[in-house]
Amino acid sequence: MARGKPRLRVGVVGATGIVGRELLDSLQRRKFPVGELLAFSSGRARQTVRFNSRALPAPGVDERALASCDLVFFVSADEVSERLAPGLARRGIWCVDDSSAFRQDPEVPLVIPEVNASALARDKKLIAGPNCTMTGLAVAGWPLHRRVGVRAVRLASYQAVSGAGKAALGEFFSQTRLLVTKLDSSGKAPLLAAAKAQALPRAIAFNVIPQVGGFDEKGESSEERKVAAELRKIWSAPALAVSVTAVRVPVVRGHSLAAWLTMARPTSPVEAGPLLRAAPGLTVSKEGDYPTPLTCKGPGPVYAGRLRQGAAADELCVWIVSDNLQKGAALNSVQIAEELLKRRWLAA
Amino acid sequence: MARGKPRLRVGVVGATGIVGRELLDSLQRRKFPVGELLAFSSGRARQTVRFNSRALPAPGVDERALASCDLVFFVSADEVSERLAPGLARRGIWCVDDSSAFRQDPEVPLVIPEVNASALARDKKLIAGPNCTMTGLAVAGWPLHRRVGVRAVRLASYQAVSGAGKAALGEFFSQTRLLVTKLDSSGKAPLLAAAKAQALPRAIAFNVIPQVGGFDEKGESSEERKVAAELRKIWSAPALAVSVTAVRVPVVRGHSLAAWLTMARPTSPVEAGPLLRAAPGLTVSKEGDYPTPLTCKGPGPVYAGRLRQGAAADELCVWIVSDNLQKGAALNSVQIAEELLKRRWLAA
Repeated sequence: MARGKPRLRVGVVGATGIVGRELLDSLQRRKFPVGELLAFSSGRARQTVRFNSRALPAPGVDERALASCDLVFFVSADEVSERLAPGLARRGIWCVDDSSAFRQDPEVPLVIPEVNASALARDKKLIAGPNCTMTGLAVAGWPLHRRVGVRAVRLASYQAVSGAGKAALGEFFSQTRLLVTKLDSSGKAPLLAAAKAQALPRAIAFNVIPQVGGFDEKGESSEERKVAAELRKIWSAPALAVSVTAVRVPVVRGHSLAAWLTMARPTSPVEAGPLLRAAPGLTVSKEGDYPTPLTCKGPGPVYAGRLRQGAAADELCVWIVSDNLQKGAALNSVQIAEELLKRRWLAA
Repeated sequence: MARGKPRLRVGVVGATGIVGRELLDSLQRRKFPVGELLAFSSGRARQTVRFNSRALPAPGVDERALASCDLVFFVSADEVSERLAPGLARRGIWCVDDSSAFRQDPEVPLVIPEVNASALARDKKLIAGPNCTMTGLAVAGWPLHRRVGVRAVRLASYQAVSGAGKAALGEFFSQTRLLVTKLDSSGKAPLLAAAKAQALPRAIAFNVIPQVGGFDEKGESSEERKVAAELRKIWSAPALAVSVTAVRVPVVRGHSLAAWLTMARPTSPVEAGPLLRAAPGLTVSKEGDYPTPLTCKGPGPVYAGRLRQGAAADELCVWIVSDNLQKGAALNSVQIAEELLKRRWLAA
């Protein structure tokens, strides 16, 4: 930690969840100037978390303790954020919310710092981070939208199970362990297909599931709606046409996207390549190479490859990978807080 | 087997491969009128296969024996088909080729019986079956193309490892066994990422790989080119715009597709639904339900669900699953041969 930096009282609500642990890890790795860390579990079970090599208690939420913080990260359920964040923000406490509760609230900035840090405002103490699925596209497509203009987006996702939380991950692991002894080319997996999926709508081991969240009357899943609405808000592009097929795949960590971008005018990969390579937060693979969830090279935190012409001269295709737990959640929240520090809006 | 049906001398080249075994299974299950089955391994190792509860030898290819057949199925490598099929066809022997060797040959019908059985001709003895990835779309999209017209297709695939053959499947299984004991939410899997992939370009267990085949100078993979070219040929739609992102996923069997179809005019899911439900060879899920590789309900052999509006009024989205080893390969070949029987072009 740099000397002389303010040392803040930082609350983390949901510290014992998958994203919570990643958040503590990010704060530590990035040397965020934490003076005191108050960790809270969003559940009732008494747990501990590790931060800077120390075990900290993570009791249930204590509203009085939260009110003593300079900054509170919410990495828990929508309901928890809804109940606590607006009150704290009114009292002048910066709240960085990773839930989807306030993302579409016009009074709440929805921020990916590489894209729209300009949406932050000194008097808007409650700030939302985006859905983990659209983050990669929002970062990778941003230079194209800013410099040329994107009219329409079609997106197929390959989403890791960790994005669905601990219970889904446990289900995935136990299904995999059950099936791994029975693997053969028939691939029929009757046991697994019959196994009752609980946290996810179908068995996920050795399968793909084109459902992330519930369906609306138009047949779109809540994840697909979130991606569309949040991309429009973050890019300030209310007229952007967005069509998404959100699919869960048997990957532990790392969301991938196959994206088609319809540009405002014919745009070649030769023109688009340098724009992408100059984009903050984006690492573009060399020609012939590409990122995968297990093999991302370079600083990131978003990775792109396979930039090529799409179905017409005004369409580009690109493959995008980003860490759903970090850039899609924990890291983005910490980057937002760093932006507040940089502007000196947040000080101990 | 129905009495009085012709009993044919049937050759199978590549009988010991994954698709070969599926083909024998299909012939048996569908009671194809096999009088004598001559099975050949395309490799050199002496192996046996099972057909109608009997073990049959599957030696290396014997050209003289093949020349005595009424019908030969090729479910082996391109080179093997190239070397043997044209000569046999010239001698009047029906050759149904599952390789990609002749699919783009204008003299060779490329046939999915539900779509273009009309492309078969009495004097065209060499017939090609299509790439396993595009089969699902060719069947599911056909009624839309025939009745309304499809102008453009965007396709993201979720392709099973069995489509890459036995070695890839073995690699997938051993990687999964290695990793299954180390599963945790970090998902970093350094061991696996470092493991040298041989049959596939990256480790596939707990990963997705946006490369199927080699890349050309435009950055398209051979699989992506095949899908586009074969769809145009099978639909007789030379002007169809097709853009594909072909991705391998850690699924044993069953290729899935997220498809966007740009229609010749505005087309609602309400109009398109009945067209799909009437399509031969296609089972459409009830609203709110969908097929997955492990959970396809109904006769098939192609399954569709999640039919909905796309990015504009003239665009439809649909999710498609089909068995890459059966409808994508073995079953389609047997269906072609059944069509020849039906027309009495093939008789003992």
